[in-house]
Amino acid sequence: MWLNIAFVGLKVLMIIVVAGIVVRVAKMLIRKTFSVRIKGPLKYNERRQQTMSKLLENVVTYAVYFMAIIAVLSAFTIDITGLIAGAGVLGLAVGFGAQNLVKDVITGFFIIFEDQFSVGDYVRIGQAEGTVEEIGLRTTKVKGFTGELFIFPNGNVTDVVNFSIHNSIAVVDVNISYESDIARVERLIQEFLVDLPEKYEQIIKPPELLGVQNITTTEIIMRITAETLPMQHFAVSRGIRRDLKEYLDQKGVEIPYPRMVMVQRSPEESNPSVIAKK
Amino acid sequence: MWLNIAFVGLKVLMIIVVAGIVVRVAKMLIRKTFSVRIKGPLKYNERRQQTMSKLLENVVTYAVYFMAIIAVLSAFTIDITGLIAGAGVLGLAVGFGAQNLVKDVITGFFIIFEDQFSVGDYVRIGQAEGTVEEIGLRTTKVKGFTGELFIFPNGNVTDVVNFSIHNSIAVVDVNISYESDIARVERLIQEFLVDLPEKYEQIIKPPELLGVQNITTTEIIMRITAETLPMQHFAVSRGIRRDLKEYLDQKGVEIPYPRMVMVQRSPEESNPSVIAKK
Amino acid sequence: MWLNIAFVGLKVLMIIVVAGIVVRVAKMLIRKTFSVRIKGPLKYNERRQQTMSKLLENVVTYAVYFMAIIAVLSAFTIDITGLIAGAGVLGLAVGFGAQNLVKDVITGFFIIFEDQFSVGDYVRIGQAEGTVEEIGLRTTKVKGFTGELFIFPNGNVTDVVNFSIHNSIAVVDVNISYESDIARVERLIQEFLVDLPEKYEQIIKPPELLGVQNITTTEIIMRITAETLPMQHFAVSRGIRRDLKEYLDQKGVEIPYPRMVMVQRSPEESNPSVIAKK
Amino acid sequence: MWLNIAFVGLKVLMIIVVAGIVVRVAKMLIRKTFSVRIKGPLKYNERRQQTMSKLLENVVTYAVYFMAIIAVLSAFTIDITGLIAGAGVLGLAVGFGAQNLVKDVITGFFIIFEDQFSVGDYVRIGQAEGTVEEIGLRTTKVKGFTGELFIFPNGNVTDVVNFSIHNSIAVVDVNISYESDIARVERLIQEFLVDLPEKYEQIIKPPELLGVQNITTTEIIMRITAETLPMQHFAVSRGIRRDLKEYLDQKGVEIPYPRMVMVQRSPEESNPSVIAKK
Amino acid sequence: MWLNIAFVGLKVLMIIVVAGIVVRVAKMLIRKTFSVRIKGPLKYNERRQQTMSKLLENVVTYAVYFMAIIAVLSAFTIDITGLIAGAGVLGLAVGFGAQNLVKDVITGFFIIFEDQFSVGDYVRIGQAEGTVEEIGLRTTKVKGFTGELFIFPNGNVTDVVNFSIHNSIAVVDVNISYESDIARVERLIQEFLVDLPEKYEQIIKPPELLGVQNITTTEIIMRITAETLPMQHFAVSRGIRRDLKEYLDQKGVEIPYPRMVMVQRSPEESNPSVIAKK
Amino acid sequence: MWLNIAFVGLKVLMIIVVAGIVVRVAKMLIRKTFSVRIKGPLKYNERRQQTMSKLLENVVTYAVYFMAIIAVLSAFTIDITGLIAGAGVLGLAVGFGAQNLVKDVITGFFIIFEDQFSVGDYVRIGQAEGTVEEIGLRTTKVKGFTGELFIFPNGNVTDVVNFSIHNSIAVVDVNISYESDIARVERLIQEFLVDLPEKYEQIIKPPELLGVQNITTTEIIMRITAETLPMQHFAVSRGIRRDLKEYLDQKGVEIPYPRMVMVQRSPEESNPSVIAKK
Amino acid sequence: MWLNIAFVGLKVLMIIVVAGIVVRVAKMLIRKTFSVRIKGPLKYNERRQQTMSKLLENVVTYAVYFMAIIAVLSAFTIDITGLIAGAGVLGLAVGFGAQNLVKDVITGFFIIFEDQFSVGDYVRIGQAEGTVEEIGLRTTKVKGFTGELFIFPNGNVTDVVNFSIHNSIAVVDVNISYESDIARVERLIQEFLVDLPEKYEQIIKPPELLGVQNITTTEIIMRITAETLPMQHFAVSRGIRRDLKEYLDQKGVEIPYPRMVMVQRSPEESNPSVIAKK
Repeated sequence: MWLNIAFVGLKVLMIIVVAGIVVRVAKMLIRKTFSVRIKGPLKYNERRQQTMSKLLENVVTYAVYFMAIIAVLSAFTIDITGLIAGAGVLGLAVGFGAQNLVKDVITGFFIIFEDQFSVGDYVRIGQAEGTVEEIGLRTTKVKGFTGELFIFPNGNVTDVVNFSIHNSIAVVDVNISYESDIARVERLIQEFLVDLPEKYEQIIKPPELLGVQNITTTEIIMRITAETLPMQHFAVSRGIRRDLKEYLDQKGVEIPYPRMVMVQRSPEESNPSVIAKK
Repeated sequence: MWLNIAFVGLKVLMIIVVAGIVVRVAKMLIRKTFSVRIKGPLKYNERRQQTMSKLLENVVTYAVYFMAIIAVLSAFTIDITGLIAGAGVLGLAVGFGAQNLVKDVITGFFIIFEDQFSVGDYVRIGQAEGTVEEIGLRTTKVKGFTGELFIFPNGNVTDVVNFSIHNSIAVVDVNISYESDIARVERLIQEFLVDLPEKYEQIIKPPELLGVQNITTTEIIMRITAETLPMQHFAVSRGIRRDLKEYLDQKGVEIPYPRMVMVQRSPEESNPSVIAKK
Repeated sequence: MWLNIAFVGLKVLMIIVVAGIVVRVAKMLIRKTFSVRIKGPLKYNERRQQTMSKLLENVVTYAVYFMAIIAVLSAFTIDITGLIAGAGVLGLAVGFGAQNLVKDVITGFFIIFEDQFSVGDYVRIGQAEGTVEEIGLRTTKVKGFTGELFIFPNGNVTDVVNFSIHNSIAVVDVNISYESDIARVERLIQEFLVDLPEKYEQIIKPPELLGVQNITTTEIIMRITAETLPMQHFAVSRGIRRDLKEYLDQKGVEIPYPRMVMVQRSPEESNPSVIAKK
Repeated sequence: MWLNIAFVGLKVLMIIVVAGIVVRVAKMLIRKTFSVRIKGPLKYNERRQQTMSKLLENVVTYAVYFMAIIAVLSAFTIDITGLIAGAGVLGLAVGFGAQNLVKDVITGFFIIFEDQFSVGDYVRIGQAEGTVEEIGLRTTKVKGFTGELFIFPNGNVTDVVNFSIHNSIAVVDVNISYESDIARVERLIQEFLVDLPEKYEQIIKPPELLGVQNITTTEIIMRITAETLPMQHFAVSRGIRRDLKEYLDQKGVEIPYPRMVMVQRSPEESNPSVIAKK
Repeated sequence: MWLNIAFVGLKVLMIIVVAGIVVRVAKMLIRKTFSVRIKGPLKYNERRQQTMSKLLENVVTYAVYFMAIIAVLSAFTIDITGLIAGAGVLGLAVGFGAQNLVKDVITGFFIIFEDQFSVGDYVRIGQAEGTVEEIGLRTTKVKGFTGELFIFPNGNVTDVVNFSIHNSIAVVDVNISYESDIARVERLIQEFLVDLPEKYEQIIKPPELLGVQNITTTEIIMRITAETLPMQHFAVSRGIRRDLKEYLDQKGVEIPYPRMVMVQRSPEESNPSVIAKK
Repeated sequence: MWLNIAFVGLKVLMIIVVAGIVVRVAKMLIRKTFSVRIKGPLKYNERRQQTMSKLLENVVTYAVYFMAIIAVLSAFTIDITGLIAGAGVLGLAVGFGAQNLVKDVITGFFIIFEDQFSVGDYVRIGQAEGTVEEIGLRTTKVKGFTGELFIFPNGNVTDVVNFSIHNSIAVVDVNISYESDIARVERLIQEFLVDLPEKYEQIIKPPELLGVQNITTTEIIMRITAETLPMQHFAVSRGIRRDLKEYLDQKGVEIPYPRMVMVQRSPEESNPSVIAKK
Repeated sequence: MWLNIAFVGLKVLMIIVVAGIVVRVAKMLIRKTFSVRIKGPLKYNERRQQTMSKLLENVVTYAVYFMAIIAVLSAFTIDITGLIAGAGVLGLAVGFGAQNLVKDVITGFFIIFEDQFSVGDYVRIGQAEGTVEEIGLRTTKVKGFTGELFIFPNGNVTDVVNFSIHNSIAVVDVNISYESDIARVERLIQEFLVDLPEKYEQIIKPPELLGVQNITTTEIIMRITAETLPMQHFAVSRGIRRDLKEYLDQKGVEIPYPRMVMVQRSPEESNPSVIAKK
């Protein structure tokens, strides 16, 4: 029996070693092929090519290791069957387990087939927001803004928000005080906006002053929008904010602090018991 | 065996290339047909035609690639069957996976059949809000206000809010101070509203002053509503807000700042220990 | 084979055209019948009649198009069966898909049968609030206050809130200051309420002063309720609010601003380190 | 074939008319029976009798219309069977649909059998709060405080809160200032509470002063509780609040405004850069 | 046929009357037995006995009425079977309905068997909090603090919080100002706590001063805990709060009001446009 | 028949009595065994032993009573079978009921087998937080801080947070004012921390000053962490807070009150209508 | 029979003892092997090795105890079968129970196979955030920042956030007042940032000043980002905050307190009743 175990162990070791080598070689080949074929006749979307490369590596890895596991398991098979009498229960359980796996793979297939997002896109999926790093057969990896890596099974991907397909809109709100002359401020901002596209090359169309977005309890809010290249709206917003602040300062338009009207009363006046006694 | 693999690879490549060409040709034909047939005898709703064009492209793409995949898989079939003994488990899992797919397709069919929304409508579906860009067989794409693209399977579409079917109502709230003469303010606003429909052509009916919507701790809120063309209420609201603010300024009606009555006390009076000791 | 496809295409086209014509004719007939039969012997509830008219149109449309789809599919049948070997998987998936459809139809049937709401009622169902525009076999449409249209499958309708069946109650809260004489204010409000039913014809019963609803940190809140015709409580509340504000102003009852008692301290007194050092 | 359709139509019409008449007659009989039998020998709980009357009407309506529908459907049967080949799918779907129906009926049965609430009780079930108007076989109707009608299937009724079975407790919180003499205030409130049961007949037991419920940042909160007849606690609370406010005013106990201690500093002292430079 | 119906009606009536009588007699017997057997040899936990008495009544009621219903149904059986052809659908639906019923009964059984709570215990289960009034076979009834009765099926009982098994801990937080001498305040509170157990007999162990629980922006919070008899912590907390407030007042320890440091600036200094122009 | 019932009753009574006696004897034996075997050769983890003792009692109780119930039921069997024809429905329902029971037991088994927590550990599981009192076969009991007992089925235990396995970290945040010299404060706190481990023996490693955790609108927050014995961090935090407050007071480092810069304006200046008129 | 029980007990004891010894020996061997093999030819990722060591121990423990349990159960088998007649119900229930177990194991397998996280990584999974301590076959253990241990089944692991794979980004926001010269402040911060990488070796790239992130009601917020080694961003942020505060103090750039503009009014002016009377 000990011989048997040793033999099985050896077999398992060999399978693992071989599988490891095959995976490495395959990955290398895939990378080379893709770096060469960029200028081939089929002219794949460059954005999609990167996705495909990552995916192919992933698929090959799974396929090879899957076969390795089957091989390893088959080496043990006889013992396992001996242990568990009720194989039906195991079959049922494995069936349910595989269900999730299949769901992940099918959804992953549609993500790539429908080109919902590619490697390098900036997306928001559930709680994950960031740049897609890898779309695998079973899981997707997204790298967040502050460096964290989100890993989730494809079956969890339902609502995708993709920021990299269309141009982004930078939205900047400016507060001005009630006392400001709205017409004059609008004129000033309009003038200011004219020069922006020259200054920021990420701005596609001339920015627009939408108008009085809201009148809060202490401020009038003016909204400006500017269409930019995808995901450039953060940088553009920051720029507009700074430039506009300086511009309005020069023109003497005040950005208001919160304001409150105070009415002073003497304590006698506000003490109910005093009044009641009168 | 290597020959076999090479042969399969070649076959797969060919299938992919042919499928790609067919899809492109079909898409081109669909677009041409639709751009021609606008003035045909059947007189489809123009709004719906755009939806149909996008959908047909989508359906053709799926159909062609679906056949291609079947073809590709059939090239591999023998190997797969050899690997997995328990095909029942796989069948079950695929059945469950297909279930979601079918659900998406059926819901998608009803969205189009019941004309819940068309390409170009402004809708809110779950967390996605924006203009519908494409209604596919399996997924719908909605482009948000700031440029992001929402992609979700049709099976997730349950509650649809469509803003493009009926006229919109612009709602503007104006705050006036407690000290204002409500009757006079109402008269002033009524006069102001009379001229609005001339100024903004998006306004359908003469706007209405609903009255005193609420009395908060420091303000009286008057509500104005104006029926506009679909999705024009944002622009109209902004316009009314600005014009009304200027109008009320001219007439001397104050928009109040938050107000607080302060009662001054000396520290001795408010120190409990001091009082207790007396 | 190309001939076959062309033939099938022709057949499909013909089916669609015929179905379209049948639906239009049927809708026209339904509308005529209902506009005539209002004074028939059966005396249906007028409110319900409108619902029935909309529903019948909906049912006829579905029935005709359903037959058309069956006809179209049967033209394709042979090819589909040829493609998919495992028809069991498809059957299962379609069964699950149909399940939702049936659930929608059954719930829709009960909504109409139990008269939970009719076309024209003001309802709140889930997140949708507004006037019912159409109750279909599968979906219900509700038009919101600001013009948006909510569309949801009947299967999602569980908790219905219907505002159009019973009279509504207008609830108006008035804040008075701590220093006010509550008894006098109550007397004043009582007098004020006596004249209301004459002024607003939507008020059914004489309004009631419930009393001191709450004593917050700076105000005493008095609550008034008035029973009005269904959905007239918004308008009535606005009217009462304005009239009462003017009335209390005349009588010299103050609506209080938020109030705060300030205790002044010199910095030395409040610097812990200074004290500690002593 | 047209004859056939006409015949079926006639048959359906007749079934509907007969069913309508039967339902009306049955309802009338039920109402008469119940108005007579109040003094019968079985002495049903009067509260429950009203529930039963409503329920019986509901059951009869369902039963009659159910038979009518079966009759109507049987008139169509041959055509339907002809259309749909796969009756198994339909059977499955109807089975699932009926499941919800049965669940509603079973839960409804237990609501009445266990007397969880009766018509006229004030209850809170899920988001619905108000007076029960009707307990049907499938749905329950609750009328809310402001006139809206909540309609929900009995299957949604899980957690019931019934306010009409036991006496209610009115809870009144009074704020007094830190500077007040707690012992004296407690004595005063105790005296005040003694007279309450005479004044408000809905109060069952002498109200109780629980004591210092909480000490917040600016107030001491004293809590009073009074047991009242079911659902009379709102009215009683309002009364106690008003009376107690007047009483404390007379006795010179202050209800405190929010309070804040202000420490004045000169700008130089608080500018970090100035200090840092020193 | 009418004879048949009359006969069935009579039969049903008789069954109901007999069942009603049996239930009443059984309940009476149960109550007598339990009031007698308190001093029997088996010495059941007195707390559990009350639960058992209520439960037994409940079980007997169900059992008798269940048999009655079976009897009534069997009188109708022949007609029902005649109406519905597909009995399988009904069976399935009833099976699912019964599933919930069985789940409720099983969970109810474990609640009593594991003695999770008994009649009279103060518990929190889901949203219900109050004293347990009845544990039935299918539902549990809990009476809330303000008199409302919570009724929920036992199947909903998962997380139980029982307050009546162990002693409760009264937690009292005291705020003192930054300027206070913490060491002295701790000494004072320690002295104060020594006398408490004599004053409040519900306190089991000498209360403890935990120390400085938190330092908020304007206060230092000291925490005191006192172990009391079950559910006596509310009353004890109220007492400690009042006594401690008086004690600290006597000793001159200030309970601080919220505090804010104000820095005054002239408008010129804070107007950015003015500065920018310089 | 009455004889039969009496006989069954007697049998049931006997079974209950015998089962009660067996359970008591078994519990006694278990306690004795465990109090003896602490010094046995197997050297179980002492923490685990207590868990095992409680569990064994629980298992024995269940096993005995389970057999008793089977015995009691078998006495009734014949009657029950007679009543219910469709035993299949009952079987299905019991199967589903047992499913939950089995899930609870399996999860309970893994809790103990994987040693996720033991009796006496301080844990947070779902909404329950406190000391584990008993881990049973089906339910777990946790005693909360204020004396309440949480009882929940093991199947609800998914995410366990165990505070008793590793050392705890006490986290203390100190606010200092903008005007403070950060470098000096850091030096002072460092000196202060050096003496702490001697003062509090629960501190394992010398505490650490992490640095400037945050700069809020009015304060600089410095964070200190100290590793303590498990669950000693509450006590240690309280101690550090008090000592540090006194230390900083001595050294003249101010803990700042909230601060606000006030800019005074005259009413004329801030009234928009006045300005607009100019 | 007693003999039989004794014999079974002995057998069970022996099985447990043997299993315990085997597990200990196996664990020892695994540890030794791994500490030796670090420099073997296969060159596993060092990070993964630690995970493997822990996992192998876990797997061996399970495997051994699983066999032991099977052995123990088989000793009891005959009795159990005798007790429960309906073994089908048990089988079903065990099947469902095992389903969860299998799901946990499969997910656990993919976590390790896809290298989602390893022992020592800092991750956030659901509500658990901390350092991974152990990845077992069924459960994962994560040690939180303050010392608590999170234990959850692998089946609950869906969305993983791994902070240890990529570099982290430290984000520091600085508030400056409206009155500041933005251009100058930007210049100052830029100069400040140049020296940072030398000071903090965890900073990988020169930090960046993103610009004006936001303009709130009283402050301008400037954002700085710095790429650091994984999980070093907390320490780096703290350092930057302190250094920058000192630097800006030196340069005379003010960090603003919240600001409010106060408008003083006399009570007469703000009392509506007074005005109304005029």
